[in-house]
Amino acid sequence: MQPDLKGIKVAVLGGDAREIVLVSTLSRLGAYVKVVGLPVNNDPPHVTVYGTLEEALIDVQAVILPVPGLLEKGNIYCVYEEKPLILTEALLVKLPSQAPVFAGFARPKLIEIVERSNLKLIQVLALDEVAILNSIPSAEGAVQLAMENTAITIHNSKSFVLGFGRTGASIARLLHGMGAKVTVVARSASYRARVYEMGMEAISFEELPDAIAKAEIIFNTVPKMILTNCILTKAKEDAVIIDVASPPGGTDFDAAARLGIKAVLAPGLPGRVAPKTAGQILAKVIPDLLAQELQQNKVQ
Amino acid sequence: MQPDLKGIKVAVLGGDAREIVLVSTLSRLGAYVKVVGLPVNNDPPHVTVYGTLEEALIDVQAVILPVPGLLEKGNIYCVYEEKPLILTEALLVKLPSQAPVFAGFARPKLIEIVERSNLKLIQVLALDEVAILNSIPSAEGAVQLAMENTAITIHNSKSFVLGFGRTGASIARLLHGMGAKVTVVARSASYRARVYEMGMEAISFEELPDAIAKAEIIFNTVPKMILTNCILTKAKEDAVIIDVASPPGGTDFDAAARLGIKAVLAPGLPGRVAPKTAGQILAKVIPDLLAQELQQNKVQ
Amino acid sequence: MQPDLKGIKVAVLGGDAREIVLVSTLSRLGAYVKVVGLPVNNDPPHVTVYGTLEEALIDVQAVILPVPGLLEKGNIYCVYEEKPLILTEALLVKLPSQAPVFAGFARPKLIEIVERSNLKLIQVLALDEVAILNSIPSAEGAVQLAMENTAITIHNSKSFVLGFGRTGASIARLLHGMGAKVTVVARSASYRARVYEMGMEAISFEELPDAIAKAEIIFNTVPKMILTNCILTKAKEDAVIIDVASPPGGTDFDAAARLGIKAVLAPGLPGRVAPKTAGQILAKVIPDLLAQELQQNKVQ
Amino acid sequence: MQPDLKGIKVAVLGGDAREIVLVSTLSRLGAYVKVVGLPVNNDPPHVTVYGTLEEALIDVQAVILPVPGLLEKGNIYCVYEEKPLILTEALLVKLPSQAPVFAGFARPKLIEIVERSNLKLIQVLALDEVAILNSIPSAEGAVQLAMENTAITIHNSKSFVLGFGRTGASIARLLHGMGAKVTVVARSASYRARVYEMGMEAISFEELPDAIAKAEIIFNTVPKMILTNCILTKAKEDAVIIDVASPPGGTDFDAAARLGIKAVLAPGLPGRVAPKTAGQILAKVIPDLLAQELQQNKVQ
Repeated sequence: MQPDLKGIKVAVLGGDAREIVLVSTLSRLGAYVKVVGLPVNNDPPHVTVYGTLEEALIDVQAVILPVPGLLEKGNIYCVYEEKPLILTEALLVKLPSQAPVFAGFARPKLIEIVERSNLKLIQVLALDEVAILNSIPSAEGAVQLAMENTAITIHNSKSFVLGFGRTGASIARLLHGMGAKVTVVARSASYRARVYEMGMEAISFEELPDAIAKAEIIFNTVPKMILTNCILTKAKEDAVIIDVASPPGGTDFDAAARLGIKAVLAPGLPGRVAPKTAGQILAKVIPDLLAQELQQNKVQ
Repeated sequence: MQPDLKGIKVAVLGGDAREIVLVSTLSRLGAYVKVVGLPVNNDPPHVTVYGTLEEALIDVQAVILPVPGLLEKGNIYCVYEEKPLILTEALLVKLPSQAPVFAGFARPKLIEIVERSNLKLIQVLALDEVAILNSIPSAEGAVQLAMENTAITIHNSKSFVLGFGRTGASIARLLHGMGAKVTVVARSASYRARVYEMGMEAISFEELPDAIAKAEIIFNTVPKMILTNCILTKAKEDAVIIDVASPPGGTDFDAAARLGIKAVLAPGLPGRVAPKTAGQILAKVIPDLLAQELQQNKVQ
Repeated sequence: MQPDLKGIKVAVLGGDAREIVLVSTLSRLGAYVKVVGLPVNNDPPHVTVYGTLEEALIDVQAVILPVPGLLEKGNIYCVYEEKPLILTEALLVKLPSQAPVFAGFARPKLIEIVERSNLKLIQVLALDEVAILNSIPSAEGAVQLAMENTAITIHNSKSFVLGFGRTGASIARLLHGMGAKVTVVARSASYRARVYEMGMEAISFEELPDAIAKAEIIFNTVPKMILTNCILTKAKEDAVIIDVASPPGGTDFDAAARLGIKAVLAPGLPGRVAPKTAGQILAKVIPDLLAQELQQNKVQ
Repeated sequence: MQPDLKGIKVAVLGGDAREIVLVSTLSRLGAYVKVVGLPVNNDPPHVTVYGTLEEALIDVQAVILPVPGLLEKGNIYCVYEEKPLILTEALLVKLPSQAPVFAGFARPKLIEIVERSNLKLIQVLALDEVAILNSIPSAEGAVQLAMENTAITIHNSKSFVLGFGRTGASIARLLHGMGAKVTVVARSASYRARVYEMGMEAISFEELPDAIAKAEIIFNTVPKMILTNCILTKAKEDAVIIDVASPPGGTDFDAAARLGIKAVLAPGLPGRVAPKTAGQILAKVIPDLLAQELQQNKVQ
């Protein structure tokens, strides 16, 4: 059940296909949405499209930035607009104190701007619930990459999944559901017990060097150097590595190249392989967060 | 890979079919096992059967008690021996300081005796790994009880699972694998996201009163009063409740009886429905713990 | 979508909990149901309860007998009535020519009576659709028996399924969904390919003698002597056999007893372990068949 | 267990990556393999590479053509060789009478040549076992195409599978294992009962026009015009169709284009998406067939 957002005024600035889904949900729940940089229909008062950030930010209670927030140069990530949308403190100054600013994740620049403007930054991807929901398109994207880069089926393949966190668990379950012979490499005995309960094989990282030789497809989810040159020399030459850990991943890509092992670094899969589903996840989570935040601000 | 226990001297006192599996594993790993109250073959030096606790406790480095440890009256749980085996401080006094004493879980009496004897109590069922492994026979036992107490198949049944902890997750997965239409009731949004990823329906406890009417089988794993009279009045009269939370469970059994709803309290399932598997779990976990503890004692 | 049975007059004679479900569905679809030997509420005109077959058979267009039809002595199978209900040609003579007579399966006596009365016998269990639907409660019943007769969990058990017909396929799928390590023994290479696609191991009957030694639970579905003395001598002593083939099954039960192997013959599971589900299957299938048959008779 | 092919002389002519796997297996089983048009290592006597069909066909007992056999113009399908390899009766005349000639499937030209040469044509893909094994890479290829052509995840997608034959069953199972909400459209009530047993929804083709509106992804396996203009007008505009039926498929592609519905015809998936797995299937099946055929010829 989604919250009533009747009368709430919110700016959605930049983004990609995901934010289009979000705008549509926000307006359906009753919010007044002010949009910049997205190809949505201008349909006031519920959806109003503006040409500049300045206009869009007048009289709003909250700001929604795209998943990657601000890029290196301080401009808002935006795939539909060539002209850069530069977000500055000066623009945010008119928002109410502690107004929520949503982004998937925030680079230092964005953190700084929001803090100085006395607003409240909410990094949506850091929420456990969102990370788990996003692990679904991530897992499918990882498997799609594996399909595209191997000459074998996932079915009956000897697939290794390194790490059993949120994404690792989803990849492992998906592979198992597709008939792969899955080995999960996990640090904790509890995780390995859960993997066993789920019908898959579990080993520790200490056992990886001896076991890696039988892997046909290797999915890494651990954001640390795991697939070192030393480990890779023990892997099959025609093994394929799909590394979904956040950049720079957990693979020695140079060593892999030298050894003739195909290795693909694949961050940010949800938005790329299933933008509509990824948008629906935002559209499920952000309205709740928005309602909670504004309720809190009112109470205080 | 199991540890080498060569030369280690350990007493196994009382128990049921589970401890028989454990004795066999300990001796296979090289330990000298001194046994009281179990119908195992006397086969010195690796397995030696004694008539009294006193004899068995001479010159041992560790003690293994059965899963329920000491019963109310201070006697060791033991299904094969009529004569009570009473464990006292006097008996434990000869063990080395901080020697490990294993039990599944410990009642206050056992905690007291072990502390006073300056030994180290290890409650095996409290370990996350063991609890997860034990959730497998628990889940099967719960489903077996449901099969025996309903006139419908699990397949296509509308089954509710209250709680998504270690046992709840295993019951939900098992039901899903058997083709039930599963609704998991979970407090945290993260758990509900994981349930959705696993292909099942998830609701919060706030939504339970409205949803309960469609449940045909209800599995409770939450050790709090959840299925109150008020909730039960909204349930189907031919619904069946299997409550696997530790006694007294989470069901108002009087209310259920009044309403004609069949409700079964079912604690301690692993040892009852699958003693051999439950014994294998102990036999997988205890040797590791034993090796670690004795290693630590040596180092100190 | 179920057919309209408005105005159709049908007798339901004897039976068990399954026929109670069926009576309720038939009357809901508009039929006038005349009942003997079932504890249903007398609620004319849709459900009328009679004391004798004679009264119930006046002016009906079809007769529904219970799943086992007539027992050895010519009496209708009926668990709720002590007084035997004897079905004779004399009683059936007043039915219209070629009126349908339904039973689950028919012994020679019933076949003879129906033929001589110039009626049309329909053995419902022989229909492929019904056999597949019934394989669901059969499979669950077989697994429940295995749970009750073993000291291990189904999860991770080495389970063999002999035969991959309608029931064998359902048992194998169920075990696989519960986390068993399943080996299916099937005669045809096509079936073995399908088993492989489903993620299980497949062997031929020629390979059974060499493979049987690793089986912990054996499910037989083949109505021929498969588990001979010779094969059983190669099985584990603590293996458990659940034989669901129609009596006398496919197991040399004497040999099993001699060898100390537990073997259970378990025919007719659906009605025993899940009578309500088994009744719902009849209630799904029989109305369609009834409508078709009476339509045909009208046309002719 | 694979047969002993020691001393058997066989020609493998043309092909793609699949035949490379096959050559390697045949030689490992002891055969003398004469190869034309494949980039394999010349390693006499077990693998000998020839430049012309004429040389390769001297003194062989069997011929293995690639899966597509002869193309329209009479040349052997061969992806590694620019120069066409033309197979003629004159070339085959030296083979022993009734020598087996293998191909995946045969166009009329090949059928004619083999018959006139008094040889025995074996169309491997027509064998039930092979068709089922091939349905695994077909299903994965179909799902990969769906992933590449939609903006949603397979998980929780409303996916329709038209037909429940060998490929339809595998696609449906795969989608179900990935967490899709699967509806199978099947003609026979038995198939629909099996779909229900497998935990999916089943409807008849009569129900398709009313149900199609909710489909997000549609997989067609029926080689007849099923997705007509009339049906497609009732489908979602952003539905995606993956048609794996043999060309020309079962979709009115012109109507789909007019309606803005993305529709992809995707025949011959196994060799394209998983050539190594497809080759392993041939390498599993052809040695058995070869041994049987030559054994039969010897006996006669």
